Amino acid sequence: MKINSNYLRLKDSYLFSTIAKKIKAYQASHTDADIIRLGIGDVTLPLAPAVVEAMKKAADEMGVKETFRGYGPEPGYEFLRDAIAKYYASKGVNVSAGEIYVSDGAKSDLGNILDIFDADNKVLIPDPVYPAYVDTNVMAGRTIDTARGCEANGFKPMPESHYEADIIYICSPNNPTGAVYTHAELKEWVDYANKCGAVILFDAAYESFVSDPTLPRSIFEIDGARTCAIEFNSFSKIAGFTGTRCGYAVVPEELERGGAKLGALWNRRQCTKFNGVPYIVQRGAEAVFTDEGMKQIKANLAYYMENARVIHEGLESAGVWHVGGVNSPYIWLKCPLGLSSWEYFDRLLERANVVGTPGAGFGDNGEGYFRLTAFGDKERTKEAVRRILADLK
Amino acid sequence: MKINSNYLRLKDSYLFSTIAKKIKAYQASHTDADIIRLGIGDVTLPLAPAVVEAMKKAADEMGVKETFRGYGPEPGYEFLRDAIAKYYASKGVNVSAGEIYVSDGAKSDLGNILDIFDADNKVLIPDPVYPAYVDTNVMAGRTIDTARGCEANGFKPMPESHYEADIIYICSPNNPTGAVYTHAELKEWVDYANKCGAVILFDAAYESFVSDPTLPRSIFEIDGARTCAIEFNSFSKIAGFTGTRCGYAVVPEELERGGAKLGALWNRRQCTKFNGVPYIVQRGAEAVFTDEGMKQIKANLAYYMENARVIHEGLESAGVWHVGGVNSPYIWLKCPLGLSSWEYFDRLLERANVVGTPGAGFGDNGEGYFRLTAFGDKERTKEAVRRILADLK
Repeated sequence: MKINSNYLRLKDSYLFSTIAKKIKAYQASHTDADIIRLGIGDVTLPLAPAVVEAMKKAADEMGVKETFRGYGPEPGYEFLRDAIAKYYASKGVNVSAGEIYVSDGAKSDLGNILDIFDADNKVLIPDPVYPAYVDTNVMAGRTIDTARGCEANGFKPMPESHYEADIIYICSPNNPTGAVYTHAELKEWVDYANKCGAVILFDAAYESFVSDPTLPRSIFEIDGARTCAIEFNSFSKIAGFTGTRCGYAVVPEELERGGAKLGALWNRRQCTKFNGVPYIVQRGAEAVFTDEGMKQIKANLAYYMENARVIHEGLESAGVWHVGGVNSPYIWLKCPLGLSSWEYFDRLLERANVVGTPGAGFGDNGEGYFRLTAFGDKERTKEAVRRILADLK
Repeated sequence: MKINSNYLRLKDSYLFSTIAKKIKAYQASHTDADIIRLGIGDVTLPLAPAVVEAMKKAADEMGVKETFRGYGPEPGYEFLRDAIAKYYASKGVNVSAGEIYVSDGAKSDLGNILDIFDADNKVLIPDPVYPAYVDTNVMAGRTIDTARGCEANGFKPMPESHYEADIIYICSPNNPTGAVYTHAELKEWVDYANKCGAVILFDAAYESFVSDPTLPRSIFEIDGARTCAIEFNSFSKIAGFTGTRCGYAVVPEELERGGAKLGALWNRRQCTKFNGVPYIVQRGAEAVFTDEGMKQIKANLAYYMENARVIHEGLESAGVWHVGGVNSPYIWLKCPLGLSSWEYFDRLLERANVVGTPGAGFGDNGEGYFRLTAFGDKERTKEAVRRILADLK
């Protein structure tokens, strides 16, 4: 019996536990400190009433023999796949319901999709990055190359001739940086992937925060993407489903490698190792796309984006270099005074009683940068920005 | 870019689609036929009122800012892990809440657990079998050996000296056969696994159907199991959660291989590729273990077991060799008149208008056998048994 020895090569992340420890230590010696957390990556507003009502109705159906539902179709009920296809259509993107695979979230899908690829494939991952992209590939023993984000490219790395990539990760709007690729930039990636036969895993979890109509919200807005890309999306951020769990992958019919349709492989994976999303949750997700649901979730998104605007404009007024905060709930700023990520963390905690996330925690290229998020309370966010600016003066 | 070529070695299963086609064809030429389905593997009774109420209350909480829940702990909320630990205690089994990992179902866990093992491990799988055990290992390219079930061993294969196994699957009460291992039999397997360093993956999904107090309902009732076994269980069959999705794995603290604690590896897998079970569903699962919930689900289990009794006693009276049906919702019978599985399927469909599942669909050793299930309607099950017996006369 041998365990998967790749697990022993995983790096433990102490990012959030170190943050928690530092806050605790500071609070212990400054019991009156009014600390504002601007590092939170989770939503804070409740589920929309339309979603709650739909789930309660579905729960009632499950309690009656005539309307009870047992095992559902693994890729999701038609009613939800149809609703998602219509949502794509509303964004001007043509995706059929049969290309949509409903799941318990983008995190699960982004990890599990790797099952259908050979362990020898080379992987290209941007840095700074959402840590799960790296860890899931380390677990499979794959060789990882890094696409470097930096101030010069606005934390939007572009294809480079020396890359050898079979699998390419792109997240736009990006977590942690908030940077958003343009159509032209994504077109370069799509052309590159089609040329070398790579597959792009496109994480679109933050697409609902894009308000600029000239920016893409789906990789499938790009010509050629249907032969090289899989898109992952989720109800977590659009509708506050982080604790309700529903997402979906879109695998185009045309997408084939080695003579096999990737949609068929993914469906086989899911039918063998997954049993579908709770009926109740699927009814809740469907309600997101009703007129009433959309109106309610748009109010929530506007609340978060007002926070983002306050942070963005505050930093702008103080001349702090940053990306994000306009079409993204994340703001990625260059630490002032040449401070390192953790030095700035300590300074903000001590001098402003504001907590953010050190960029160095998202990869080597995050050193010297800092992430703030828009998921907090409106008045507290304003106060935090006021304190951050006061400290800079 | 290479796909995982192991996927191309998967056998397509046409079992249930062939059954559906045969029924459709028969019905087309016999429009008045009153067909009874005794092959269904899904529950049919609705969720217990206590579960429905708990989920509706949780949905309401999710709609209010003060009680909203975002990302939950990946291994499950303490309230549910504690409730499951108490359920184990009620069965006389000592398992701590920290050893319990809540998931979206046993099917997911039984597939995903393989991530933590090396692809070179040799696997021992009983035959006949739940097909996902085989497919998940084929996907990982593992070598599979078969533990043969047959009339002589009552479809309870035992360790044999020629086996070379690193990973051993045991399902008791068994799907598809309904056979239940005794303490002494499981002790043999546990001793065997401890001796050769193998890990037993114990599928306990049907434990709630065991009414005989002398039969084990958990592998952890067996001395020595804590150093060689992982147990998988689910709310699907105990409480009708097949469409609500909640299960759990129990990985004992003592279980180590290659110097690593398997619980820590599993937790790392889940924290990287999974984001927990919906809060609403976890509250529903918790309600199963309340006094009220237990009373309600026991009524449902009794309903199914009355069906099982009717089938079992009917076959007994006709002298048909079979296992299961006493401490299991499945009944596994030897086809009469020396018929093959599919021959008996056709005969029952045509002469009795009853549908079951050909045993050959569960592996080579299922040929000549046939599965009936207790998940149908009470009166319809009685009528089906009457017709089966009439055909045998």
